[in-house]
Amino acid sequence: MAQNDPDFSRVRVVLVETSLARNIGSTARAMMTMGLSRLVLVRPAHFPDPDAYALASGADAILDQAQVVDSLDQALAGCVLALGTSARRRELRVPECGAREAASLTWSHTQQQHEVALVFGSERVGLTNEQLLRCQYLVVIPTSATFSSLNLASAVQLIGYECRMHALAHAGTPPNAPEADEWDPPATVDAVAQMIQQMQTTLDAIGFLHGRSPVRIMRRIQRIYQRASLTSREVQILRGICTETMRALASVARSHPGA
Amino acid sequence: MAQNDPDFSRVRVVLVETSLARNIGSTARAMMTMGLSRLVLVRPAHFPDPDAYALASGADAILDQAQVVDSLDQALAGCVLALGTSARRRELRVPECGAREAASLTWSHTQQQHEVALVFGSERVGLTNEQLLRCQYLVVIPTSATFSSLNLASAVQLIGYECRMHALAHAGTPPNAPEADEWDPPATVDAVAQMIQQMQTTLDAIGFLHGRSPVRIMRRIQRIYQRASLTSREVQILRGICTETMRALASVARSHPGA
Repeated sequence: MAQNDPDFSRVRVVLVETSLARNIGSTARAMMTMGLSRLVLVRPAHFPDPDAYALASGADAILDQAQVVDSLDQALAGCVLALGTSARRRELRVPECGAREAASLTWSHTQQQHEVALVFGSERVGLTNEQLLRCQYLVVIPTSATFSSLNLASAVQLIGYECRMHALAHAGTPPNAPEADEWDPPATVDAVAQMIQQMQTTLDAIGFLHGRSPVRIMRRIQRIYQRASLTSREVQILRGICTETMRALASVARSHPGA
Repeated sequence: MAQNDPDFSRVRVVLVETSLARNIGSTARAMMTMGLSRLVLVRPAHFPDPDAYALASGADAILDQAQVVDSLDQALAGCVLALGTSARRRELRVPECGAREAASLTWSHTQQQHEVALVFGSERVGLTNEQLLRCQYLVVIPTSATFSSLNLASAVQLIGYECRMHALAHAGTPPNAPEADEWDPPATVDAVAQMIQQMQTTLDAIGFLHGRSPVRIMRRIQRIYQRASLTSREVQILRGICTETMRALASVARSHPGA
């Protein structure tokens, strides 16, 4: 799938005045899982820092290449689209959008070779109004009304996830398409019908159909296996159970020949 | 917005064999931001633990009420839908779905008053195959091909986010899910597990497992019935077949007493 990883080389994640180095590390990890690679740090309290590397869990390359700058202006240099983020709605006149819309905006801009910045404020106060006004949109993540304390790296994770989902959906590769198994193809309709027939014979032999409506009970059983979308091998297994049941009955009868 | 918070009271987050208490704390925080509240811990290495509370960032109520159990079976008791999670695709025939589809499944089940479990494995190995087979679906989060190290709390955050997004979009609108059949509700996860256990005993008695790998064959059989989304009555029918098979074997033996 590596060759299908979407191209996010024009997307930068900007962390503004992050206080805890471990949050920078977790952010790098979150970014890397979603295929984002460019990290810009505006006046971080501690960086570089061993805590950041400890929490990056192997996403060291992102930390090694992170750019540290003095101002949000520097961080946004060259960007066409800047998306600020917040876990709560604000009184500002910056237009709001959801993470899904943000992902769509991000993707369409990068497809036009535009640079995009996803901007995250400090842990305590988020983005200030001043900082938010540098962004075209405020991305609002709909947290619970009673608990909006979204971790910084979690916010990056969610927006990165939406970006990745959108990119995968629009890059021509389905994100989760199940692969066909050439060694065990889906069972044919007639193979399943024959199996059901054999089951009926077997259920009759063990006495399961006695006193019941065979038609109704066999319909129910048929529905179970239709819903299961059986493979060829699975049909073989289920038929094998029937065969073995008949053999067991016969063999018990044979081993007790005195009847 | 509090009155509009979706009702996730039938959704439990199950963490299996979590090694680090801080991940339990971050998970509680992630859950609470998305309005999830029920946490079940299967054999946590350290819990309760001050690290968990430190990382919960105020989501203490979830930790206070977390249920600690000895087995995944206990954690899944009463559930109709169990969704396992993985950052990578697996060789198993558990049907896969994305986080978005998982959210839709979760919501439609809770709307029918079904209990739902979102199941997350340990930090190191994720869910074992054995554990995954207790789930009807494997939720695959499409991480980067080159770096799939998704943090536990981040995985909970992403799936919780999708659940919340879906619920907010569908709250108030009548679900177009099929109506629950009050006479034949979906089978619970534990009822299916007991049925599989009885099947194994029966297959052993008829000799079907001789010369085969019981573990592998039982896994295949388990997958068939998981895909079928059995109802309670269907479980009764399938168990009835097992009972009748044993009775038939015994009765043939009795009716041939001369051995």
